[in-house]
Amino acid sequence: MDSANLETVRAGNNAPAPAKDVKADVNALVALCADDMADVNALILERMQSDVPTIPALAEHLISAGGKRLRPLLCVAAARLCGSDNQHHHNLSAAVEFIHTATLLHDDVVDSSSLRRGKVAAHLIWGAPSSVLVGDFLFARAFELMVETGNLRALGILSKASAVITQGEVMQLSKAFDLNLTQTDYIEIISAKTAALFSAASESGAVAAGAEEARVQALYDYGLYLGLAFQIRDDVLDYESSAEALGKNAGDDFAEGKSTLPLILAMQATQDEADFWARVIGRREQKAGDFAHAQRLMRGCGALEAARQVAEGYAKAARDALGVFAPGPWREALEALAVYSVERKV
Amino acid sequence: MDSANLETVRAGNNAPAPAKDVKADVNALVALCADDMADVNALILERMQSDVPTIPALAEHLISAGGKRLRPLLCVAAARLCGSDNQHHHNLSAAVEFIHTATLLHDDVVDSSSLRRGKVAAHLIWGAPSSVLVGDFLFARAFELMVETGNLRALGILSKASAVITQGEVMQLSKAFDLNLTQTDYIEIISAKTAALFSAASESGAVAAGAEEARVQALYDYGLYLGLAFQIRDDVLDYESSAEALGKNAGDDFAEGKSTLPLILAMQATQDEADFWARVIGRREQKAGDFAHAQRLMRGCGALEAARQVAEGYAKAARDALGVFAPGPWREALEALAVYSVERKV
Repeated sequence: MDSANLETVRAGNNAPAPAKDVKADVNALVALCADDMADVNALILERMQSDVPTIPALAEHLISAGGKRLRPLLCVAAARLCGSDNQHHHNLSAAVEFIHTATLLHDDVVDSSSLRRGKVAAHLIWGAPSSVLVGDFLFARAFELMVETGNLRALGILSKASAVITQGEVMQLSKAFDLNLTQTDYIEIISAKTAALFSAASESGAVAAGAEEARVQALYDYGLYLGLAFQIRDDVLDYESSAEALGKNAGDDFAEGKSTLPLILAMQATQDEADFWARVIGRREQKAGDFAHAQRLMRGCGALEAARQVAEGYAKAARDALGVFAPGPWREALEALAVYSVERKV
Repeated sequence: MDSANLETVRAGNNAPAPAKDVKADVNALVALCADDMADVNALILERMQSDVPTIPALAEHLISAGGKRLRPLLCVAAARLCGSDNQHHHNLSAAVEFIHTATLLHDDVVDSSSLRRGKVAAHLIWGAPSSVLVGDFLFARAFELMVETGNLRALGILSKASAVITQGEVMQLSKAFDLNLTQTDYIEIISAKTAALFSAASESGAVAAGAEEARVQALYDYGLYLGLAFQIRDDVLDYESSAEALGKNAGDDFAEGKSTLPLILAMQATQDEADFWARVIGRREQKAGDFAHAQRLMRGCGALEAARQVAEGYAKAARDALGVFAPGPWREALEALAVYSVERKV
């Protein structure tokens, strides 16, 4: 990851909001990718099969619950934007979704989450051991899919991203309940745990299409910035929304003491509430009403709005990265996705 | 896996014990591989590093505790037996050890084991979440190492093995406390959870050396049969030995209701104890003294000896597979390893 670029984007957070000509939209991209994604989804269903019945049952519970399939969409869109006229990116798209699903299964065990994609988390039905092992299975299957492409560069991109993701997650775990985490630490964590797979998805799609280096780099940048915007929006939603709307529990981040941007900004802006933060985050002593109080503080001091603006800065950087491509439906759909990433309600 | 071959070996279990000309020995192989393994160990230490301090700390706890490094040794030996004069197999050897270490970390979480390689299990020091995530990290790093070799066939072998291993582990988990498991089910489980990585290690070593197909197949067969012999011996030791000697708890398999060969054979041979087995395995109701009673039954009915003979059949099949190679120090060392796999005390 290019941390110099990240610094530039951070410094540019006072830039104006995205031009109003692009409307937040994910459906344009979904429509453009429909044919590709029909094949990718068939591949996903085919490759999650196993003679051991627990594996497809558990995997299907999570995979059929939907989710936006954003990462495979990114891989497809990158390949098509780069002019691919074949299906070399299908295996990579399915692999990216398997890697993502594996991390979700392991994350839910790690965080003891009870809800995922609007359904009871898999580890509460099949047990944590099965969730760990089926995650491993999907991860291994992802590599089988990638090896079949014979594209060593794409394999390198996605295996490196997989290692980076786990490092981000361990870092996040070790920094939980930390009163002193900075915005820089936070960006480092989400660059690894979230944005690395977004950028690997779009970069590997470009590589599969045989794109020239400037376009590969542009799609890496787009994925990275989109991933950052997406994760910050996610972290804002965890304080802003309800479990019903999210399909996962609101307030989970607070209960786990996860140092997310809204929390970091609120702790900085409300020094008079230092005792409250020291108790609920520093000493991990939370009681009923604390989450609601934290939400009120965040709204009151403008932390949620400030976090939204940081996300907007990254969404704009993502759009800017697409400048190397001629205007057209694929570029427009990816721009609309960048705007969507910070305006979405779920 | 070739189940027809496995059937043949099973049918041949009444064959005479291995000729006495080959002595059980692992040290001959260790000595032959010393130069290679110095490089492989350096590579292992280098690639388990990360800026996130928990990762090398946790990984080193397990990796520096030693273990026999049997799987990377197999990869090295296969390459050298096939005449390799380079180091292309070093990355694969390190990758194989990382895959193995990742599965150990996850297994100990899955089984809630308290002891591993004579040390407190990592999840009891760093927590199950960190063990899960560091396992994921090592798995991802294994793929990075493999991608660097540029050898797509070896990548395919090891990624397929990784998927097979997890299937074996899920199968084992779903068959725990099962009174009706057969020897065939058991062989299917250990072929996947253990022997698949042994065979992938030796097969990929041969592939890295550019060996002809008959030799690649012979080393796949050798690894498969060695892995089966090795796992059966492991399962016998769990009823025969003490925690002190094993470096992990004796009796763990019994407590977890793991359907291993000694248990399957003992339940078949002691029908008059059906009530005991129904209680401790079928209904999972175990109390103090049950493990000792199970051990006495196993010794008394000859189940431990019978299991040992099955292991010997596989060890002999492993040695036979080496018949395509001319006699020499590498072949002899691998033959001695096969005998060692069933005669070892730890």
